[in-house]
Amino acid sequence: MSSSLPAVGVEDVRRAAARIKPYAHKTPVITSATVDSMTGASIFFKCENLQRVGAFKFRGAANAVFSLDGAAALRGVATHSSGNHAQALALAARLRGIDACIVMPKDAPRVKVDAVRGYGARIVFSGNAPEDRERTLADVVKETGAEFVHPSDDLRVIAGQGTCALEIMEEIADLDFVITPVGGGGLLSGTALAVHGVSPKTRVIGAEPAAADDAFRSFTTGTLFPSGNPKTIADGLRTSLGPNTFPLVRTFVTAIITTTEEAIVRAMRLVWERMKLVIEPSAAVPLAALMEGKLDIKEKRVAIVLSGGNVDLDALPWIAR
Amino acid sequence: MSSSLPAVGVEDVRRAAARIKPYAHKTPVITSATVDSMTGASIFFKCENLQRVGAFKFRGAANAVFSLDGAAALRGVATHSSGNHAQALALAARLRGIDACIVMPKDAPRVKVDAVRGYGARIVFSGNAPEDRERTLADVVKETGAEFVHPSDDLRVIAGQGTCALEIMEEIADLDFVITPVGGGGLLSGTALAVHGVSPKTRVIGAEPAAADDAFRSFTTGTLFPSGNPKTIADGLRTSLGPNTFPLVRTFVTAIITTTEEAIVRAMRLVWERMKLVIEPSAAVPLAALMEGKLDIKEKRVAIVLSGGNVDLDALPWIAR
Repeated sequence: MSSSLPAVGVEDVRRAAARIKPYAHKTPVITSATVDSMTGASIFFKCENLQRVGAFKFRGAANAVFSLDGAAALRGVATHSSGNHAQALALAARLRGIDACIVMPKDAPRVKVDAVRGYGARIVFSGNAPEDRERTLADVVKETGAEFVHPSDDLRVIAGQGTCALEIMEEIADLDFVITPVGGGGLLSGTALAVHGVSPKTRVIGAEPAAADDAFRSFTTGTLFPSGNPKTIADGLRTSLGPNTFPLVRTFVTAIITTTEEAIVRAMRLVWERMKLVIEPSAAVPLAALMEGKLDIKEKRVAIVLSGGNVDLDALPWIAR
Repeated sequence: MSSSLPAVGVEDVRRAAARIKPYAHKTPVITSATVDSMTGASIFFKCENLQRVGAFKFRGAANAVFSLDGAAALRGVATHSSGNHAQALALAARLRGIDACIVMPKDAPRVKVDAVRGYGARIVFSGNAPEDRERTLADVVKETGAEFVHPSDDLRVIAGQGTCALEIMEEIADLDFVITPVGGGGLLSGTALAVHGVSPKTRVIGAEPAAADDAFRSFTTGTLFPSGNPKTIADGLRTSLGPNTFPLVRTFVTAIITTTEEAIVRAMRLVWERMKLVIEPSAAVPLAALMEGKLDIKEKRVAIVLSGGNVDLDALPWIAR
């Protein structure tokens, strides 16, 4: 094992599980005879769309917030995100009774701004470029002393996201594969740590839109590719691996598979229609890749993390506007 | 207890639970901090939208099919339904390896016809009037000797639907209320039997669209009102109580509450948006009535059966076409 691996392991995931247990939902695992017969496999869907704030992100944010010591907690937490991590950190902070400050791009959708505000967080708007939001965040941290909780590359966040895989393995034995979407890699690397520690024969796979295949390219070349603001419907997966998630993914993940935009929408609709679960496009990416035959799962036991369910119900991808 | 009560009790529900266990999903119970804070109650949602065929109807159909003796099973089963019971009976018959014949009105939506056919059932089309479909069904039964399984007023169906409440009470203690939608009354009467037998202090409530309030009027007047092809978005609740369900509802149900069409759509959207569950309008009726304040549930523990999730994703009620 490379000496450059970040200092996080399955024991951190176990501690995170104990820490967030009073706050996070233990989400159900659902199966579908229809999907099993379409794929020839036994697929177990872990419903993180039913997690608090509608996404697995609550696990990592809660682990970060509840692992702060008293003095740090008093100074609050801060992050930049217009996605699920923003809501997750806001809710986790509220549950601990501390301040959260979220830096959001000034063109963030109103519904997302309102959701974060609804959880009681302070919002600071920044320009839309990555360097703008980082400068604004640095100002916030300097001013308040708040603890920065990165959406994916924070070790506490990685350990928190791994708790989802612990729950899967407690409930489902003898898995051949666990597949998660990959954007910043917090969920994928946390999952890989947990699975490697508990069930080393189970292989962990990341799934990514072909239109945003920076993780695939980083994984296969060994060089970290930044994400160049890619165009994909899977808006949760536009970010790239980081200094912590990249080596973890390289060490513990077996493969990254990619899928088309059309397949993502088809898989999303299939889950809504046949499984009655509202999932966001990012959550459909693993199933989309499987439906396109990107992994040989015939007669295998496969867990998929349905990572989130935050979508605009007025703008569904299969309804023309 | 009236001597006119049909011969079905909680022991039949327990036998049904054992009988269908190999085939039916034990569906999860989900909570929502958002809904709890909106209502001031603790609400437990039993997710029968995640049941096989996407509705609780599979429980009753499976109990009917698997309680047939060998000779009767050989002659198959038959029913009239263009709704969830049609798919439920078709799947249950396929699982037992026997014939199912479903009488559907000739203007039934193509997607529903295809779904039933997809489960391997034979479809016989009839005229759209109730007497047409009953005549056609009588012809089918005469010709094949098939066992008629009524969508709601069959005692085996009633016992099967009650198994959902058994699961709720196994998982959630000290419930003040269990609320289900009411159309034909199979779910409501089965639930009432099960709850009365296991937790007699818990009150069972039926919820109905005000636009289709035949059960409410039957319940309050003591005279069985037929349903007059009412116009409600809750298409699963257009039928009326029957000779078996009516006395059970009168005896074991505490109240029937009604709600508006607007509240049904709002509650449906709330469940999709905040709970990430695809539910059909009928399933939203209990929550809609609660959101309108039709029952005092402050600080109470309330279970709601989310009865089904079969909707046309191309025709959502909040999207103009």
